[in-house]
Amino acid sequence: MPLSRRSVLKGALAGAAAAALPTRAEDERAPIYEEIKRRHDEAVRRIQHWIAKPSIAAENLGSEEGPLVLIELLKKAGFQKAVPVKTDGKAGVFATLDAGARRTVGLYFMYDVKQVDPREWSSPPFEARLVDKPGFGKCIVGRGAVNQKGPEGAFLAALHAIQGAGRKLPVNLVLVAEGEEEIGSPHFAQVVRSPEVLQALGKCSGIFMPSAGQGPDGTLEISLGAKGIIECELVASGEKWGRGPQKDIHSSLRASIDSPAYHLVQALHTLVSPDGTEPAIDGWFDKVKKLSPAEEKMLDAAAKHMDEAQMKRQFGIQHWVHDADFRTALVRLTSQPTVNIEGLVGGYTGQGGKTVLPHRAVAKMDFRLVPDMGAADSLQKLKAHLAKRGFGDIEVNMTGGYDPNTTSPEAPLIQSQIKTYRAAGYDPLLWPRGGGSWPGYVFTGEPLKLAAAHFGLGHGSGAHAPDEYYVVESTNPNFQGLDGAVRSFVDYLYELAA
Amino acid sequence: MPLSRRSVLKGALAGAAAAALPTRAEDERAPIYEEIKRRHDEAVRRIQHWIAKPSIAAENLGSEEGPLVLIELLKKAGFQKAVPVKTDGKAGVFATLDAGARRTVGLYFMYDVKQVDPREWSSPPFEARLVDKPGFGKCIVGRGAVNQKGPEGAFLAALHAIQGAGRKLPVNLVLVAEGEEEIGSPHFAQVVRSPEVLQALGKCSGIFMPSAGQGPDGTLEISLGAKGIIECELVASGEKWGRGPQKDIHSSLRASIDSPAYHLVQALHTLVSPDGTEPAIDGWFDKVKKLSPAEEKMLDAAAKHMDEAQMKRQFGIQHWVHDADFRTALVRLTSQPTVNIEGLVGGYTGQGGKTVLPHRAVAKMDFRLVPDMGAADSLQKLKAHLAKRGFGDIEVNMTGGYDPNTTSPEAPLIQSQIKTYRAAGYDPLLWPRGGGSWPGYVFTGEPLKLAAAHFGLGHGSGAHAPDEYYVVESTNPNFQGLDGAVRSFVDYLYELAA
Repeated sequence: MPLSRRSVLKGALAGAAAAALPTRAEDERAPIYEEIKRRHDEAVRRIQHWIAKPSIAAENLGSEEGPLVLIELLKKAGFQKAVPVKTDGKAGVFATLDAGARRTVGLYFMYDVKQVDPREWSSPPFEARLVDKPGFGKCIVGRGAVNQKGPEGAFLAALHAIQGAGRKLPVNLVLVAEGEEEIGSPHFAQVVRSPEVLQALGKCSGIFMPSAGQGPDGTLEISLGAKGIIECELVASGEKWGRGPQKDIHSSLRASIDSPAYHLVQALHTLVSPDGTEPAIDGWFDKVKKLSPAEEKMLDAAAKHMDEAQMKRQFGIQHWVHDADFRTALVRLTSQPTVNIEGLVGGYTGQGGKTVLPHRAVAKMDFRLVPDMGAADSLQKLKAHLAKRGFGDIEVNMTGGYDPNTTSPEAPLIQSQIKTYRAAGYDPLLWPRGGGSWPGYVFTGEPLKLAAAHFGLGHGSGAHAPDEYYVVESTNPNFQGLDGAVRSFVDYLYELAA
Repeated sequence: MPLSRRSVLKGALAGAAAAALPTRAEDERAPIYEEIKRRHDEAVRRIQHWIAKPSIAAENLGSEEGPLVLIELLKKAGFQKAVPVKTDGKAGVFATLDAGARRTVGLYFMYDVKQVDPREWSSPPFEARLVDKPGFGKCIVGRGAVNQKGPEGAFLAALHAIQGAGRKLPVNLVLVAEGEEEIGSPHFAQVVRSPEVLQALGKCSGIFMPSAGQGPDGTLEISLGAKGIIECELVASGEKWGRGPQKDIHSSLRASIDSPAYHLVQALHTLVSPDGTEPAIDGWFDKVKKLSPAEEKMLDAAAKHMDEAQMKRQFGIQHWVHDADFRTALVRLTSQPTVNIEGLVGGYTGQGGKTVLPHRAVAKMDFRLVPDMGAADSLQKLKAHLAKRGFGDIEVNMTGGYDPNTTSPEAPLIQSQIKTYRAAGYDPLLWPRGGGSWPGYVFTGEPLKLAAAHFGLGHGSGAHAPDEYYVVESTNPNFQGLDGAVRSFVDYLYELAA
């Protein structure tokens, strides 16, 4: 039985050794664990059903149905109240489950998924097929499988299992969800800051998002924060520039007419160091905090327990930037702001060439922010930097983004995670800050000041990439399948109640 | 009657004043001129029919039918022989019309057209609708209307008119055509250098391409050469670079993983001056010849007779590069090599954003070359420049291109053009070199060393752009409609025979 496996990882934290025998709590929860096994197929189908109803904010696809599908899933899982929350963008969802418990815990869900190019997938991305993946086990392959419908579906399965075993939930739940996470959560603050939602969240001891926390090598991290982000398009055009053409013209005219596409290239060039790696925007590092000694210690521990070669294979890379060593690469992932080109689109983009001088070119960008950089302040710095260098005409169209967030390792939300993982036989690595972003700032910032994090056993990968997967039957001792993930949520809720 | 109009342009050449009364030659050709008018509708339909059968080399569209359509048109126009010529790419066409005349003249045709994005057109690009264009007259609007099926169709109409009037052609014709002009003529040399074609062309006194030579302001140029070109894709990828990912990965990893897209931007940056206008490739100007005093004189004359404001309106620009004056802009168009971005395609190119770190990015480029730059030598310089700066991994995939070409103003081919235009009441401007490119080098270079140029009255615009048009009934005294264009070809053939 996978859950009885004890991690072979050495404890990365003081006093990491977990008891090898079943605890009293585990015995009490035995009927729930049985119910998880009994309901395995139902839980798989629930995730498949959800994946088959995609909502893609970036493409305005399924945005009407998205919140309704989630609301139905929540009601079936025992939420007494589950309603859409209108915003200036896609609707959010607010739901509550009152179990008459002493404590209340917050949950953050997203119902939107990333775009897909079905030609890149080995099975149709919304069919959510079950595929045997050698070395991993049986997986659901589909868009949203791990980001985030799989883990969220596992959490819902935990509620079904607890209630199916005739138990009351050990905590009350307040859930907020959005359908714009993948475009930078431009309206999520409107969901959280509506008075009713704010009041409900104010009662929570913390808030978490279900996730698949286990790496393919067995690594299990508790991330104590996330980077902020600015997602935007930089648009150069003859119209705005007042130079170059206002429509695509014959490229022979390039000899005497300016090129908005090259204007964009020259602007992009100024945003990074000559080797293309470091942000070079004026004042970009002014508010960047160095890692604390405690955070440095976490990274020392992490570097020892993570498999560098496996990570490089996973990302398809041979070198880190600057040929950095592994610890440096980890430090950068957690503490370095970034300037990234997501995509370039300008002029003729079809097959072969076309001798035009384009009137317009676009760079789709993301900028990851670390404490204490703010999204609004950083956006102003970017604009000022461009203007100072003669690129003030280039439009900076921010489509989403938010500040970074931080949660203390001492918060009960985090301490309960450590206890739950250890009780299951895993030694989590504390991680100062994930390289990715999520809008936890709406919880950790004013006025709520909640602890906020991700939680969950299980494994999946391919977020934002083709063939995204979530393991439902693990054949690999490094990570749990779906039932193990569901059990981790049951155990976490009991731990949070304790 | 438009043709009786005498140009109000001052003579840009010594002795430019043309006779105001009909010449003897004009009287002899009166029945042919009548035939042109009688066959006007037939000539319009021929062009429309041809536009409705597009061949687009860049998209591998209609490449089988393209040469066959042209061959049928040529046979109907009196060519005794018209056959496809196989190449490693799309087939060319070789045709001869033996009129038993003393002199033989060469013709260069293209049957391919540029790509289209129908959404950008106000009428379907292959329907070739007749549209009333205020200030211009009745126009055929369609892809290839002016580049080059309209003028080529007008030339065929001239052959129909001469023969329809019961006359023999005054010259024999040797015609070569290709279906890859719009992708840089990568295989046209194979057409010209096949022994039979080479022998036939060797008998020619020169070779010309039918064109619509009149600008909207009445400008009429004789271009004495063309720039060469390199069309290529610059491709940056993690795979070739050995840095950065080998597939698109989550953009949070940008903090520790190199970006092939930014690698491409930094490479593009080095190819031009900081303001984005001048080529900055090592050795790029080594072989560039200054304009001769005679060429400078031609430009002085041209600058006085061209309408700068109208040109700026036509191109949708407010300034020339460097805020140059008009003469400088003209000098640059004729003598400055270029580095142009035709298109940028990298990473996520769809709607909105997508937080990926792309593994690959492409810049579609064209480089215009002036004498004595060679295409092969310039390609090597580009590659060496990139390699020297750490961008040797960036693929330089040349898809087409060729050397520049030059023809002497003293050549009988050119002198006959001047005489024909003047007899029609127009004073052509001699122009040292067009800003655009055509593969005239196969004729002007070894072994043929033919004079080569474009010829034709008439007006059209929008080559490579939406709503391309060719005027068939002019309401504007500045330029001829279709019948005037056809007549100019008749007159030119008689002048070449004289």
